[in-house]
Amino acid sequence: MRRGSTMRIVRYLEENGSPRFGSVGENGLVYALQGDPLTVYQIGSPVGELVQLHLLAPCQPTKVIGIAINYQGATGVVEGMQEPLVFLKPGTSVCGPGDSIICPFPDIPVWGEAELAIVVKKTLRNVLPEQVRDGILGFTVANDVSAQNIAGRDHHLARSKGADTFCPFGPWIDTDYNPSDQLVEAFQNSDLIRRGRISERIWDDTQIVSWLSTWVTLEPWDVILTGTPPRVVPRCYLNEGDQFVARIEGLGTLTNTFHRRV
Amino acid sequence: MRRGSTMRIVRYLEENGSPRFGSVGENGLVYALQGDPLTVYQIGSPVGELVQLHLLAPCQPTKVIGIAINYQGATGVVEGMQEPLVFLKPGTSVCGPGDSIICPFPDIPVWGEAELAIVVKKTLRNVLPEQVRDGILGFTVANDVSAQNIAGRDHHLARSKGADTFCPFGPWIDTDYNPSDQLVEAFQNSDLIRRGRISERIWDDTQIVSWLSTWVTLEPWDVILTGTPPRVVPRCYLNEGDQFVARIEGLGTLTNTFHRRV
Repeated sequence: MRRGSTMRIVRYLEENGSPRFGSVGENGLVYALQGDPLTVYQIGSPVGELVQLHLLAPCQPTKVIGIAINYQGATGVVEGMQEPLVFLKPGTSVCGPGDSIICPFPDIPVWGEAELAIVVKKTLRNVLPEQVRDGILGFTVANDVSAQNIAGRDHHLARSKGADTFCPFGPWIDTDYNPSDQLVEAFQNSDLIRRGRISERIWDDTQIVSWLSTWVTLEPWDVILTGTPPRVVPRCYLNEGDQFVARIEGLGTLTNTFHRRV
Repeated sequence: MRRGSTMRIVRYLEENGSPRFGSVGENGLVYALQGDPLTVYQIGSPVGELVQLHLLAPCQPTKVIGIAINYQGATGVVEGMQEPLVFLKPGTSVCGPGDSIICPFPDIPVWGEAELAIVVKKTLRNVLPEQVRDGILGFTVANDVSAQNIAGRDHHLARSKGADTFCPFGPWIDTDYNPSDQLVEAFQNSDLIRRGRISERIWDDTQIVSWLSTWVTLEPWDVILTGTPPRVVPRCYLNEGDQFVARIEGLGTLTNTFHRRV
């Protein structure tokens, strides 16, 4: 039984097709994780090398909450914003590290983002700032895939951010990550396109979770995206076959490839 | 075992606090529903009178999808809209018939809406129009509780429509309801405030489900709100203690009371 020690939680597909939780060791091996990763668990036998397993998103949330416009210098920042701007992505939009992002819209421009994401550990309502850390299981890397507005109408609504595969995250949940001043970067085919530091966020993890919990119940495995750093190049969209990499210093690297559904 | 016959599915709290499915008989009695209401089930013994049971929302969806601006005459209708405008409400926003709507925002104006809602029966992806009815379990009455924009920013996003208790629906799922030209009405303290006919919707149930399923996987028990008919009075907001009634001809009546959290 381990509690409170550093752990990188993954989910992988067993040969029989069932999803299982695992824990990544420093040696690059994945160990079976027995019990409930949210409460009491045991680290079991090694099941394979990380690079050889079929990884899934490290959890399946019922909802993904996104915080828009949360980095200094991001498009849309206005002086004196009194609260975060919040959108939802459904659980059905989740996909895993290495998965293809399959855009269902034939001709709408789509882009990627790189975000630090919070994974919720407990049911949270009206949580005080000092109680927030106990309610967080850990952190992961996410890509908030987004499609251009239709007729200027629905950016941040469901269609532009909620399609199947539009929420890759992983490769793991780091239970001991301590967000402070680390770099958050996005690369499109090896070109750096977004860059910022976690410290440049307008609302930090504690503020976000505490404030959200005043009006929406957060549930175990819910995922909260904390915003993307600004572009360092002119606006660029994803093209067929592009590789998109979201990387957060000390946390991990998430890679996905973009395709249009044919 | 019954399949395909008319049924009004409710959920109620047992004395031990567990939620259970039931079936409402024509005599006003609720019968225990054994098995899986989505596939194979049996109608069991009577468990009580409908009016005496503690009813819950008739199901717990993982996501609620809303269609905005879907009635002729509704605010925001623009000629030539090419697709529905879609928003999400999280599963945590659901509450049941008779429950209090508890607004967590101290001083933001809030209003109610009355909507025909679809309950999904099967996992649906890329469903053809002629396959839609088989994928629908039935219909229910919903109230899309909504809060005013903050700084003009977030109407239809998460905060204005996603708070806990902002999605009452019920009292039952009618598995045999046939939406056609029935009246949809909303009353605030007995005053009629919204009124329209199901036939006045811009997109009907078949169009909505088929189109949604091209980009978002619909899952069993997901709920889709199909829009509110327009107001018949000037804009009016909910005040402390107000009763809000959503009524759909031949389907049912949903009543909730509005309170601000103290």
